[in-house]
Amino acid sequence: MTFDNPVFVTYVIAATLMIIKMMGQGWITVYRMMKVGGGFLNPEDKSKGWANPKPRPGQLDPDDYVERSRRMHRNELENVPTFLVAGLLFVWTQPALLAAQVLLYGFVVTRLGHFWAYATAKPHEVRATFFSFGSLITIGMAIYTLIYAIQ
Amino acid sequence: MTFDNPVFVTYVIAATLMIIKMMGQGWITVYRMMKVGGGFLNPEDKSKGWANPKPRPGQLDPDDYVERSRRMHRNELENVPTFLVAGLLFVWTQPALLAAQVLLYGFVVTRLGHFWAYATAKPHEVRATFFSFGSLITIGMAIYTLIYAIQ
Amino acid sequence: MTFDNPVFVTYVIAATLMIIKMMGQGWITVYRMMKVGGGFLNPEDKSKGWANPKPRPGQLDPDDYVERSRRMHRNELENVPTFLVAGLLFVWTQPALLAAQVLLYGFVVTRLGHFWAYATAKPHEVRATFFSFGSLITIGMAIYTLIYAIQ
Repeated sequence: MTFDNPVFVTYVIAATLMIIKMMGQGWITVYRMMKVGGGFLNPEDKSKGWANPKPRPGQLDPDDYVERSRRMHRNELENVPTFLVAGLLFVWTQPALLAAQVLLYGFVVTRLGHFWAYATAKPHEVRATFFSFGSLITIGMAIYTLIYAIQ
Repeated sequence: MTFDNPVFVTYVIAATLMIIKMMGQGWITVYRMMKVGGGFLNPEDKSKGWANPKPRPGQLDPDDYVERSRRMHRNELENVPTFLVAGLLFVWTQPALLAAQVLLYGFVVTRLGHFWAYATAKPHEVRATFFSFGSLITIGMAIYTLIYAIQ
Repeated sequence: MTFDNPVFVTYVIAATLMIIKMMGQGWITVYRMMKVGGGFLNPEDKSKGWANPKPRPGQLDPDDYVERSRRMHRNELENVPTFLVAGLLFVWTQPALLAAQVLLYGFVVTRLGHFWAYATAKPHEVRATFFSFGSLITIGMAIYTLIYAIQ
């Protein structure tokens, strides 16, 4: 488990990309709140300040442009942290490099695809397909690691 | 921190079981959405397709059968990722095997109990008891590890 | 990556503090639900028992005192798990001790500040500032680690 090991490096690249992606979703929500001047969550957010230069009624009402980003964020919460740990434990089993690359980079691709499908409101089937492959990669790595540990 | 160490193996078994459990909750939500044909979150999900063979009005309305699974999932989000890291750092302190087994497998048992109590709508007290023991295990491991690190 | 390494110890201290903090938010929600006797999420929670000694109508209605704690908890979900993994991988790159201390303890300070600003309903700008610095620390550690891994 060092940076001399290409399997570990593969994990670190995939993991840091997913962390940057997930943290970025929070900033997309911030950007959208600023753009529409609403979709706020707290009563104190209605006050005037640099975060709210133009107060107006209804700023606490749900705004779907903002809520979509929050739904995307929630989907990240449901998928990224488990991937980060499942991937770490999977590479601890010393899998073949090609298997690690396919699964770990494959997960990143499914999440970027999910992001694209969700942000552009593609049909449910497109989004669900990206979610499904990503979810199955995490579950597959966890099952493989569990069997490896039990043996 | 290798698979020759039974304490580490104990952690890997508990961690992968919890990852599989938490990811499974997402699939339970999917199953419930398909079964009731509703409880969707996005306007585009109302369109006809294999994910929605029979569109009908009200598919975006909250459905408690689906929402219960989402509430269960949120509870997993609040408990599993912190357990995964607290457990990893705890086994890094080289605790006694029996202590690791009681705490790590104990956490898994509390979460399976919580799942059962939540899915079958048992009284709040039953669900709260399972939650409490699991939460205290994570907090206890974190406090122990913190004290070990400071010394 | 052992407890003889002060950089690793710095990470373990910051990580366990954040785990205790995040788990504590769940208990704050429990405390607030008990205090107001409401803000419950599930129909079964309306029944009489030690978790609900005085049933009354409206216990499932959202209560902002309770909901504020849930919003704080959600913000933790969006920030703490990624920090825990980003920090672990960052210390794996063997950074300078001072850099690790500034970033890791700095993150803890931003989250305690965020907690204080959120719990006391300080202006949005105060809360946003604490959030921003914490988020940028996680993103910064992830970018640094990604570049280190790619080289």
